Amino acid sequence: MTPFQAPTEEILRSLRLFAGDAPGWDAELSQEITQHFAAFAEGVLAPLNEPGDRQGCRLENGRVRMPEGFGAAYAELAEGGWQGLTAPEDFGGQALDHLTAAAVSEIFSGANHALQMVTGLVPGAISTLLAHGTQEQQAACIPRLTSGEWLSTMCLTEAGAGSDLSRIRCKATRDGDAWKIEGQKIFISGGDQDMSQGILHLVLARSGTPEDGVKGLSLFLCTSEVEGVRNPITVTRIEEKLGLHASPTCQMEFDGATAELIGTEGRGLAAMFTMMNHARLDVALQGVAHASRAHAIAAAYAAERKQGRTPEGTPALLTDHPDVTRMLDEQRDLARTARAMCHVALCELEKGEAPALIEFLTPLCKIYATDAGIRSADLGIQILGGYGYLEEYGVAQVWRDARITSIYEGANGIHALTLATRGLKLEDGAAIGQFAALVTRLGGGDAELELRCEAWQGHARTLAETPDVRAEAHGFAQETAALLAQAVRLRLAAG
Amino acid sequence: MTPFQAPTEEILRSLRLFAGDAPGWDAELSQEITQHFAAFAEGVLAPLNEPGDRQGCRLENGRVRMPEGFGAAYAELAEGGWQGLTAPEDFGGQALDHLTAAAVSEIFSGANHALQMVTGLVPGAISTLLAHGTQEQQAACIPRLTSGEWLSTMCLTEAGAGSDLSRIRCKATRDGDAWKIEGQKIFISGGDQDMSQGILHLVLARSGTPEDGVKGLSLFLCTSEVEGVRNPITVTRIEEKLGLHASPTCQMEFDGATAELIGTEGRGLAAMFTMMNHARLDVALQGVAHASRAHAIAAAYAAERKQGRTPEGTPALLTDHPDVTRMLDEQRDLARTARAMCHVALCELEKGEAPALIEFLTPLCKIYATDAGIRSADLGIQILGGYGYLEEYGVAQVWRDARITSIYEGANGIHALTLATRGLKLEDGAAIGQFAALVTRLGGGDAELELRCEAWQGHARTLAETPDVRAEAHGFAQETAALLAQAVRLRLAAG
Repeated sequence: MTPFQAPTEEILRSLRLFAGDAPGWDAELSQEITQHFAAFAEGVLAPLNEPGDRQGCRLENGRVRMPEGFGAAYAELAEGGWQGLTAPEDFGGQALDHLTAAAVSEIFSGANHALQMVTGLVPGAISTLLAHGTQEQQAACIPRLTSGEWLSTMCLTEAGAGSDLSRIRCKATRDGDAWKIEGQKIFISGGDQDMSQGILHLVLARSGTPEDGVKGLSLFLCTSEVEGVRNPITVTRIEEKLGLHASPTCQMEFDGATAELIGTEGRGLAAMFTMMNHARLDVALQGVAHASRAHAIAAAYAAERKQGRTPEGTPALLTDHPDVTRMLDEQRDLARTARAMCHVALCELEKGEAPALIEFLTPLCKIYATDAGIRSADLGIQILGGYGYLEEYGVAQVWRDARITSIYEGANGIHALTLATRGLKLEDGAAIGQFAALVTRLGGGDAELELRCEAWQGHARTLAETPDVRAEAHGFAQETAALLAQAVRLRLAAG
Repeated sequence: MTPFQAPTEEILRSLRLFAGDAPGWDAELSQEITQHFAAFAEGVLAPLNEPGDRQGCRLENGRVRMPEGFGAAYAELAEGGWQGLTAPEDFGGQALDHLTAAAVSEIFSGANHALQMVTGLVPGAISTLLAHGTQEQQAACIPRLTSGEWLSTMCLTEAGAGSDLSRIRCKATRDGDAWKIEGQKIFISGGDQDMSQGILHLVLARSGTPEDGVKGLSLFLCTSEVEGVRNPITVTRIEEKLGLHASPTCQMEFDGATAELIGTEGRGLAAMFTMMNHARLDVALQGVAHASRAHAIAAAYAAERKQGRTPEGTPALLTDHPDVTRMLDEQRDLARTARAMCHVALCELEKGEAPALIEFLTPLCKIYATDAGIRSADLGIQILGGYGYLEEYGVAQVWRDARITSIYEGANGIHALTLATRGLKLEDGAAIGQFAALVTRLGGGDAELELRCEAWQGHARTLAETPDVRAEAHGFAQETAALLAQAVRLRLAAG
């Protein structure tokens, strides 16, 4: 297998082009940190990726055992301070910007998506604590998360409640100052593991009645231990998945587990979205990572593999065949455009001047980048031919790992719907003009793009007035993503 | 998991519409046989599909052990006479038409692709023996193949010679009346198994010098035993694949194995193509089977799974969501159009009046139908969401199994090249007019289709004159497939 090599230069170039004007972004510091993490990812995280997938996680006496080597790698990760990269310094963090964190996150996912899954929810948990937690909660939890003593989970989904959270039945009951949680959650990434000393579960549970729908939901902090005693939270099963075998996807029973309310009772969804919005751009970056990794594997293979002859009759490499270069070019384009889109969105996030645009770009990045990762991995398999179908060349694993990204953190169909409803309507449709201005700016005056963008605005405004957009959302999302992709391509070409 | 249900009615309807005028096709008999096989597939073959994938094949002391139950299922298959469905009655076969055989083959692949892989090369071997073998060879081999005493393999690929067979190094040396084979083959499906008493390997080996290129290749018959003694043929490894775990993909050593030349020395490629052309349409039918099976799983799931609410506020099923029905509709369309294309090609094969058209349709079916199977499986995963990513719902396996079909029996990129070169040039470009006539006939006078078809003919004639079509072959194949797909859709709609 082609060893993992972090696409550090590509990432830094993209950051400079698409996020260079973000406030507080220090190109030199960002480069230094990214290169430092790249070395760690190449040397420590990536070598565990294939063995971890092969070995998988095991459930032993209700506890999850991670694959060999994952515990030691996590210890090094925590030791390096990577878990607190964006956390405030007051809480032991490094207070770095989200652009540098995105570079780190992309490299992490490219090296070892499964481990990134289990460790990667911490920044979202910290954001949630900062936005909704009390000072006591922040002081109790954030330093433990930044130091790596704790990892965190997001306990949202239930068997009857996936995309539709109004159906959540997990029950929270007041118990003096605390709460007790009772019920089952499924699809919980890292619901248990043997790497961190403790786990902070962020649990969405019903503090109200079923009739309250989503307004009866609150968010809770639920630690794996309470005053040195295990909280009654049990992993009852690890799912057999298509990929990400080294990331334990847990079915969990909360059996009267002690919990603390975080934020306002009945406003669980709002608190949850703080956590999920972070996760969504992080999932988009996983898509970028897969697109890039699959391209790297395929490009290395194609440059060495002899196949047939050139029209001149000399022995050819795969890269001499136009159909192969077509696929390689598409892979590279997918990685670059998806990465650029994410950087554009993250730059807006850092600027914080256009909330409607950020809300518009987030689902768009999630859709485009995750589809890009899956498509690039699929092309990688095709380029390697029969070898692509073997596990040992690694591109099959990239596909298997990538395939979940268009499903989790909101299926892409749901994100398309969000884009075509909330995305178009927020602040009286402010995102439409802001997005068009963004496209125009990136396109640098390209006439064809301007025409497309004008047509798109018309379409968007019509859609914003349409009562039921469900049948059009997918097409609109594709059209919107294609427009932004074209704009970033022009920007990339302009250099 | 949704139990496998053979799409018998869909298949028979398609045969009536697209192959009803094939000579010797008896609709009633075909229906009876197809229904008979469907019951066998549903009751015996399909229940082994998931357990077989989970257990996989093992290599024990140089011999391959198939998963539990496969041996017994094969015995029943052979007992039922299914291995000799299209073989001449003189050799113990049932002399049935290829349309009925296609119906059986599609159902087999939908129920259990892995087992179909191992048993499904027999008709191609029989065709090869009939076309190129001596009377003695036919008498010695065909009855054993039709009875199921033997299975057969195609030993073509080597580590350095995949799509490019001129690089084959496996050496055949004359030894009195017989030959000895020396060398290594890889990617041999069913290279060994413990289901049949014997195996007939059809081996492409170099009887000439390396400088002879493909003209130094001959085809050989090589049985697993010679006069009661094992021929020195060893399985040295079973590949770890993305899917088809119950189909042993073997690396094999021929260590001076005794063999017989079949056909003319130095004409191995021609003999091989007899075998491969059969296999190619069979692979296209595997694509149809996957498209259909993935649709069946997704449709059954979506019809029962509650998710969100309708615009009127009542609880909704997945099928109430336009984005889900969009995906389900695409799946159904993929299965139907791919099946129709295969039936059109098989009908032409039965008629035998337009060899150029057959050569043109074969790669087209292979490309379209295998891509359709993979795409439909991918949509199926998306429709099931998180559950689609779990192995227990079966659609992940459909994708994993389907993914090889656009690679093996000639990667789709190679088929596109064949289409745009040989396909357009054979018999002075006869296929262009014949294909256009076919499209027009299927389209029933649709004006828009006529225009597209005219534009396509122009493109095809230009391409036929272009010296190097490599960069355009993929696009041309897509355009051609889309045209035929549109034509069969119109025919399907006309009923």
